[in-house]
Amino acid sequence: MLEDGVDFIKGGTVTSPVGFRAGATSAGISRISGKLDLGILCSDSPCAAAGVFTRNRIQAAPVILSRKRVEKGQAVAIVASSGCANAFTGEAGLADAGEMTELAAVKYGLRPDDVLVASTGVIGVRLPMAKLRQAMGKVTLKAEGGHELARAIMTTDTVPKEVAVKVRGKFTIGGIAKGSGMIHPDMGTLLCFLTTDADVEPVYLQKALAKAVDISFNMVSVDGDTSTNDTVFLMANGLAKGEAISGGSLLAEKFQHALDVVCTYLAREIARDGEGATRLFEFTVEGAWNADEAKLAARTVISSPLVKTAVHGADPNWGRIVAALGRSSIAIEPDKVDLKFGEVYVIRGGTLQNYDEGGVAEYLKSAEITVAINLHLGNGKATAWGCDLSKEYVAINSEYTS
Amino acid sequence: MLEDGVDFIKGGTVTSPVGFRAGATSAGISRISGKLDLGILCSDSPCAAAGVFTRNRIQAAPVILSRKRVEKGQAVAIVASSGCANAFTGEAGLADAGEMTELAAVKYGLRPDDVLVASTGVIGVRLPMAKLRQAMGKVTLKAEGGHELARAIMTTDTVPKEVAVKVRGKFTIGGIAKGSGMIHPDMGTLLCFLTTDADVEPVYLQKALAKAVDISFNMVSVDGDTSTNDTVFLMANGLAKGEAISGGSLLAEKFQHALDVVCTYLAREIARDGEGATRLFEFTVEGAWNADEAKLAARTVISSPLVKTAVHGADPNWGRIVAALGRSSIAIEPDKVDLKFGEVYVIRGGTLQNYDEGGVAEYLKSAEITVAINLHLGNGKATAWGCDLSKEYVAINSEYTS
Repeated sequence: MLEDGVDFIKGGTVTSPVGFRAGATSAGISRISGKLDLGILCSDSPCAAAGVFTRNRIQAAPVILSRKRVEKGQAVAIVASSGCANAFTGEAGLADAGEMTELAAVKYGLRPDDVLVASTGVIGVRLPMAKLRQAMGKVTLKAEGGHELARAIMTTDTVPKEVAVKVRGKFTIGGIAKGSGMIHPDMGTLLCFLTTDADVEPVYLQKALAKAVDISFNMVSVDGDTSTNDTVFLMANGLAKGEAISGGSLLAEKFQHALDVVCTYLAREIARDGEGATRLFEFTVEGAWNADEAKLAARTVISSPLVKTAVHGADPNWGRIVAALGRSSIAIEPDKVDLKFGEVYVIRGGTLQNYDEGGVAEYLKSAEITVAINLHLGNGKATAWGCDLSKEYVAINSEYTS
Repeated sequence: MLEDGVDFIKGGTVTSPVGFRAGATSAGISRISGKLDLGILCSDSPCAAAGVFTRNRIQAAPVILSRKRVEKGQAVAIVASSGCANAFTGEAGLADAGEMTELAAVKYGLRPDDVLVASTGVIGVRLPMAKLRQAMGKVTLKAEGGHELARAIMTTDTVPKEVAVKVRGKFTIGGIAKGSGMIHPDMGTLLCFLTTDADVEPVYLQKALAKAVDISFNMVSVDGDTSTNDTVFLMANGLAKGEAISGGSLLAEKFQHALDVVCTYLAREIARDGEGATRLFEFTVEGAWNADEAKLAARTVISSPLVKTAVHGADPNWGRIVAALGRSSIAIEPDKVDLKFGEVYVIRGGTLQNYDEGGVAEYLKSAEITVAINLHLGNGKATAWGCDLSKEYVAINSEYTS
């Protein structure tokens, strides 16, 4: 696969960039016996570091701690666990998160301050620290360890999400992710760890990450929805020995583009793996008054239960899409609207077209469907990703007992 | 039933107040053969009139027309249909809505300007005007006709929603309603027609209605969600021959209270009859920073798919409630939070209590459940009503084909 000078690395993961190693073990935090649930990602040399966190007013202990640590723009390692969110756990939970980083720091001779931490799982329960203390010693870092780490952060995910891309002759960016806001209930966390061997200045790194997250993870089937634990980390160790990248530099645009590609890939994989999902639903808004309105509109449509059930039923129900757009409160002039399912225009200039209904119905049964609307009011454009709402979603979330 | 000097009238409906009559017929607009789908409500004398409409940016033709007409604060009749929303139908749709009011006006010797109109049903389809012209003659107004009219506006509703209350020795308020935003898809409209024989000044009437809608219909299982057709009308004909009610008058408070009772009753019935719903879910927020934050919090929780599936599974999943509260972006201090299911405290001062889990699990299987949270930050209080999210909801909405 190739996208504008960006090559996808086959089997690529968070340890694909030079000088990153990872490993994981089963600490017994998860209810699933033997599941990998504790992992570490470590760089061979200090990294510029950036982080984007949940905007939820209830913030989990690892979020509170990591947010503070990443502010200084530097880190060496990440320690992560699944099965327990360490959220709504007060001062004791904060101490537990701190101890997790100390255990990792002692093991690898680092300062705890250089270790970031992330957890995902059940809310309101303390971490089993005795188990963690014992298990930390069993983690072994490996150059191919990204695959293990990707599994160690999974909760209700059915497949690990991993990717790495190479900007030819320059640097590599790798990443792993799990979960998704709306889609994954108690385990509702988005975790994403990104690495690169590019040499990136920390202030620019933070800006680039915020930009990439905004058009990718923030556009996945949500409702402004963020869990108590959502965390995206990006660490850059410079070991590709390339030219330095900062705000104004020549490579900055290439770096941003590659980072966007990596984040968008992982965001789509998260939407595709939504609980009970049978298809990936991509919705694009063009011609909105401005970019913010386009974003709001796309997110509103992608998270509407009525649209999601119609997608599940492979029903070209444009009325529900139009109603969701209307409720998003963006500017719309009905008689300017074009709407297409795949490549087929169903509405043009606000008027229902005589389209091939059978063909569209067939298309809507695909594993990936695309719906696009053009409001013809301005230059605002945005794409959001979601999935269908199935009976399986209800089963998973109502039959699960806390 | 009795609530603070307000008596519920057994079998009460929109024609219970003095001087209101109604009737309905089957015009063949609905797909269901023989279903009542066209109705008229008429007062024996001119009424002060008020209206509250959808905030959706896509507004149906009857909404555009009625909004304009109700501005003058006077009306005599309402004509309503179900099966076709007359939304996203452009200029032609506006003409159709106008003709509906003319047909009713001609029949009863009224000015079209004094006739309000409301429709609910499928979006993007024109009204079958030939059928409407023929059927209008078949409508017969009766003193007990409110029951017929309540049925004529139903779409996916499984039961009609009707109520009337008497403020002893003073006046009566009656009402009917159908549907609900989020819950009822294409047919997603809230319609509510309210009548009173009190003598109410129009400007005050509009204020009182807006207030009542705000704490009732606006607090039903929504997400800021309003369909393209949502409409609440209130007509006051003064035929109880009581004292005049306006902003500062003695009776104003009693009138507001009775109107609140009527609207809250109908709002709860709408939540209870949500598509696929098996239980009514009432959620109260107390101690929020202010009333707006309480409202936002209550609405966010009641419309969270994760909370709704937990309610369906009779699962005391307070973690999902807390996470939804957090995402609503209101002020919360975790260690101040009390949360109870029914009368049982599960969290006090942010700490999980040792509570009777079996008892709570049993309680959560009831037909009506109440969950209350106290944030202990201020005096903001709000209640919202919703229902559970079941597989049946998904079936109804994905198997229905537009």
